[in-house]
Amino acid sequence: MSIDDDSAQDVDPAVQAAREEQVTAEVLASFEGTPDPRLKQIMQSLTRHLHAFVREVRLTEDEWNAGIEFLTRAGHITDDKRQEYILLSDVLGVSMLTVGINAPARANATESTVFGPFFVENSPAIDNGGDVAEGVPGTPCWVTGTVTSTTGEPIGGARIEVWFADEDGFYDVQYEDTVIRGRAHLHTRQDGTYEFWAITPPEYPIPFDGPVGAMLAATNRPHYRPAHIHFMVTAPGYHDLITHIFVAGNDYLDKDAVFGVKDSLIYDFQHHEPTTAHGRTLTQPWDTVHFPIVLAPTGPGEHEGHGRPVS
Amino acid sequence: MSIDDDSAQDVDPAVQAAREEQVTAEVLASFEGTPDPRLKQIMQSLTRHLHAFVREVRLTEDEWNAGIEFLTRAGHITDDKRQEYILLSDVLGVSMLTVGINAPARANATESTVFGPFFVENSPAIDNGGDVAEGVPGTPCWVTGTVTSTTGEPIGGARIEVWFADEDGFYDVQYEDTVIRGRAHLHTRQDGTYEFWAITPPEYPIPFDGPVGAMLAATNRPHYRPAHIHFMVTAPGYHDLITHIFVAGNDYLDKDAVFGVKDSLIYDFQHHEPTTAHGRTLTQPWDTVHFPIVLAPTGPGEHEGHGRPVS
Repeated sequence: MSIDDDSAQDVDPAVQAAREEQVTAEVLASFEGTPDPRLKQIMQSLTRHLHAFVREVRLTEDEWNAGIEFLTRAGHITDDKRQEYILLSDVLGVSMLTVGINAPARANATESTVFGPFFVENSPAIDNGGDVAEGVPGTPCWVTGTVTSTTGEPIGGARIEVWFADEDGFYDVQYEDTVIRGRAHLHTRQDGTYEFWAITPPEYPIPFDGPVGAMLAATNRPHYRPAHIHFMVTAPGYHDLITHIFVAGNDYLDKDAVFGVKDSLIYDFQHHEPTTAHGRTLTQPWDTVHFPIVLAPTGPGEHEGHGRPVS
Repeated sequence: MSIDDDSAQDVDPAVQAAREEQVTAEVLASFEGTPDPRLKQIMQSLTRHLHAFVREVRLTEDEWNAGIEFLTRAGHITDDKRQEYILLSDVLGVSMLTVGINAPARANATESTVFGPFFVENSPAIDNGGDVAEGVPGTPCWVTGTVTSTTGEPIGGARIEVWFADEDGFYDVQYEDTVIRGRAHLHTRQDGTYEFWAITPPEYPIPFDGPVGAMLAATNRPHYRPAHIHFMVTAPGYHDLITHIFVAGNDYLDKDAVFGVKDSLIYDFQHHEPTTAHGRTLTQPWDTVHFPIVLAPTGPGEHEGHGRPVS
């Protein structure tokens, strides 16, 4: 039995509620003098929601301590190569929610999803029909598609950045060497079409040897991301698009650890027998996928980009 | 102008709201399989309130990044001697709210406040009339009081732990040496009375050279705690009491950086001219304060303690 049990004989609920509300009121008042109105709004909203959480669950002192220890372990495992707070934001759906707020639903435009930590600037340029997968082991995949506007016009010269994991579930930057593989950029033809060789990537685990992994284990949550290829598509006069295509049928589509899956982003990767196709002699089974991309035009005064994208 | 501006020409608000709600629903569902019902409750409540915050302020990607960077800096400044997350909990009022939930208002019992990071186990024992302040520079203060139950009976043999900062605003544990000063414990006499020598401590700054200090500066918030003496009072059959007495008239009573002040805990420290009193020849001005302490009895089945106290 806990000392905060409501049945405790001499606790006056009205007095108790008033004292708790008084704490929140004092913290809100302390931020009243914040010079930047946006910072003031954020700190006061954070205070209200954080206090509402603590009050709702009647947080015990042991649980408060566990929370402090969780954040401390997350801080100590975070370094230049590992970001446990981003992972925490990801697995709590905060990253995906922030993406959704900042890249909102626009007519029939292709939907956005999380950026992820594996994008790298200055990827190699390839021509249409080129090979993004050069040196990456895995099932070859011929990717074709179009980039059009929400009103159906083809967008020529759109820049497409592509990146994906290898058949072991790792991106190039996760290896000790500094070789770039599994990432490139190309531009659409004037008729809006594009095509390139990739691989069909597998699902892969997110880092689960830290406090976030321990939380996922304690809550019986899988620590995998479903198989996907990353796309970032930009064109003057259109909103940037940061998204994935997911491989239909993958086991983890309905249990993405970071909640990045949207139904509209699941595509059939069709299987083919060995043959010669698209300038290549294929000695093993291979796949094809077609991804028609739709960009939303920017309105007057709107900027095109996302700033630094989330996660 | 931001891309999430509601005036953006082709954002359907109903579709947008539904997509945002879908993210929250997916995260809540992911915790449904949590074996421990209490952990499930906490994670789902945290998710709802955290998402409500992000949605309410329409968090931008730059702001999300600033939050990740804030938590990262807090993690990297935290070590065995410095706990920036506890400080963050303190300045957001979460520590004080958790204290209030776990040590709730009981009839006329003395109110609780934050424990703080400066308590040390195994303090020296003193007799009534002894000197807690031995070796601590500052204005001598003769502290007297009683420990009684909420129904007025004196409680003999109650254990009182006392600790306070020196005239420079530092606790013994903040110095490089390992000398214990400014802390001790004693027991009430059979009639419930107690008395000891202390000093009248000053206000002092909380650590403000980290991200929490930067946040306080950006929001124009003072980084001081008002002058106070810490008490922890325990007696069999009564709830533990963790509290302070605050020095009436101190400049920071209405702007405690950690929101620990309650009106009922502010006491007059009366000033006196040099004289001989209470077994001591006082060559400088000195103070007296009287602190009547009231403990609430535990109900049937209730435990007495707080577990490890908050902050």
